[in-house]
Amino acid sequence: VSDDAIYNLALRVGSLLAENGFVVVSGGRGGVMEAVCRGAKMHNSLTLAFLPGFNFDEANDFVDLVIPTGLGYARNAINVLASEVVISISGGYGTLSEIGLALAYNRHVIILSGSGGVSDFAAKWFGDDKKVLVVDSPEKAVEAVKSLLNVDG
Amino acid sequence: VSDDAIYNLALRVGSLLAENGFVVVSGGRGGVMEAVCRGAKMHNSLTLAFLPGFNFDEANDFVDLVIPTGLGYARNAINVLASEVVISISGGYGTLSEIGLALAYNRHVIILSGSGGVSDFAAKWFGDDKKVLVVDSPEKAVEAVKSLLNVDG
Amino acid sequence: VSDDAIYNLALRVGSLLAENGFVVVSGGRGGVMEAVCRGAKMHNSLTLAFLPGFNFDEANDFVDLVIPTGLGYARNAINVLASEVVISISGGYGTLSEIGLALAYNRHVIILSGSGGVSDFAAKWFGDDKKVLVVDSPEKAVEAVKSLLNVDG
Amino acid sequence: VSDDAIYNLALRVGSLLAENGFVVVSGGRGGVMEAVCRGAKMHNSLTLAFLPGFNFDEANDFVDLVIPTGLGYARNAINVLASEVVISISGGYGTLSEIGLALAYNRHVIILSGSGGVSDFAAKWFGDDKKVLVVDSPEKAVEAVKSLLNVDG
Repeated sequence: VSDDAIYNLALRVGSLLAENGFVVVSGGRGGVMEAVCRGAKMHNSLTLAFLPGFNFDEANDFVDLVIPTGLGYARNAINVLASEVVISISGGYGTLSEIGLALAYNRHVIILSGSGGVSDFAAKWFGDDKKVLVVDSPEKAVEAVKSLLNVDG
Repeated sequence: VSDDAIYNLALRVGSLLAENGFVVVSGGRGGVMEAVCRGAKMHNSLTLAFLPGFNFDEANDFVDLVIPTGLGYARNAINVLASEVVISISGGYGTLSEIGLALAYNRHVIILSGSGGVSDFAAKWFGDDKKVLVVDSPEKAVEAVKSLLNVDG
Repeated sequence: VSDDAIYNLALRVGSLLAENGFVVVSGGRGGVMEAVCRGAKMHNSLTLAFLPGFNFDEANDFVDLVIPTGLGYARNAINVLASEVVISISGGYGTLSEIGLALAYNRHVIILSGSGGVSDFAAKWFGDDKKVLVVDSPEKAVEAVKSLLNVDG
Repeated sequence: VSDDAIYNLALRVGSLLAENGFVVVSGGRGGVMEAVCRGAKMHNSLTLAFLPGFNFDEANDFVDLVIPTGLGYARNAINVLASEVVISISGGYGTLSEIGLALAYNRHVIILSGSGGVSDFAAKWFGDDKKVLVVDSPEKAVEAVKSLLNVDG
């Protein structure tokens, strides 16, 4: 999957979440994190981000509430605790840790299959895990969020 | 200082912050934390709270964005890092740690003298510290925030 | 893989680490964590454990230095940062997060294939990742540690 | 109080703790933290340190077990949770936060009066607080530790 395709998938997830009135939480940096915030701002949803470092200006331009945690990757635990549903899009080792932390903390996890990176591996791995939903489009991801949180369509 | 008087001081601080358009960050529990959130909601400002525990429902009723950190008192470091200015109102050991952490992280600290608890001690202690402003009313506290952040009156 | 078999694999890893003079770091609770500490104490190595909670007495009986972190699963970030090499044995969601965090923090990761749980999945997944070593016995795991840390046999 | 005098007080505290068989926990950096570790190694006690950063080599030369936490000042919460008794020697804002965190976590706190910095202020402040002991020499500080932990002289 190309970087552009991944960025567009994340943009679409953010946009659909915002259209449905959800607050979007992310790690606040570039790539997928930027795309999802940018998408959310297209429909004027609130975006919240937990940075690993100490400075407000490490956030991308589409974050409304920047929270510098100073915790390094331990901030991943807060990313998932702050969220009612966690959506995994592409990603690397940090994303892998967030899938583990989200499940350890009993958060719903949705994996966007076809988005590359760790998410594609995890889609295979967790295919049989009842705590994980594997979907293959941004639309289905956001429908799953609505269903999990009992929000009407 | 009576508990009621402390609650009212905190309510007034929250209300004035909201009236001036500031987002209010707190620890999200009862007492001063509840009062400041309640005050902020009188003028419809956004309230954000970092809980020490794991559950959304540990927050008071006036928090818009509840962030369960699961970090215990280590969450105090995030309370202060997330804030541009920290206002100390009454308080105990946890508040004392937040004053220390805020100063260690180079955040502006305003202490509300006359609010009892740790704040009254700190008001004396930090009277000569250039990084700390001691004020004696909610109005002066919020004026100081505006001045520190270069917001017009 | 049966629980007894997993326990014995972990016990053997701890014992071999201790025999070779390594300090053993773990999460300090039961199961694999207890087994590895118990094994380490057979050869009198130092055992160090980071607990998720606040109380010293949540540790198993084979931990010399108990560190209650009060950080919940965010303590997994400290488990891996404190370690020069991370060995994954069986495990669940928490272990998955530790593999992710260890790799994000550039720690060496050794996965004990055949130990069940998350480790067996990760053994397949990371078979081609240069930052991960997959081994199939406690002996090979500890040989790999020695080799990674340039310790003579 | 001169820097040399403070260093020597901390060295003496570390040395006496070690002589009495205590493990010494500190923040692992320079100044008072180095002095207390150096003192402890004079009598071959174990020294343990929690660093704010990510790298083992940020520790002073007298730390046996270096734990890089990557948590910034939030690591102060672990410093105090890991300790049965906390001794405050001189110090600045970080030390102030540790006094607050230690008391919030119900740890015993001993303040070395006459050591300058935050400790001298806190000695006055906490003179009437039953959870805090104010002492005026390293000898009395370590006697207080033994008494609090019921260790024979």
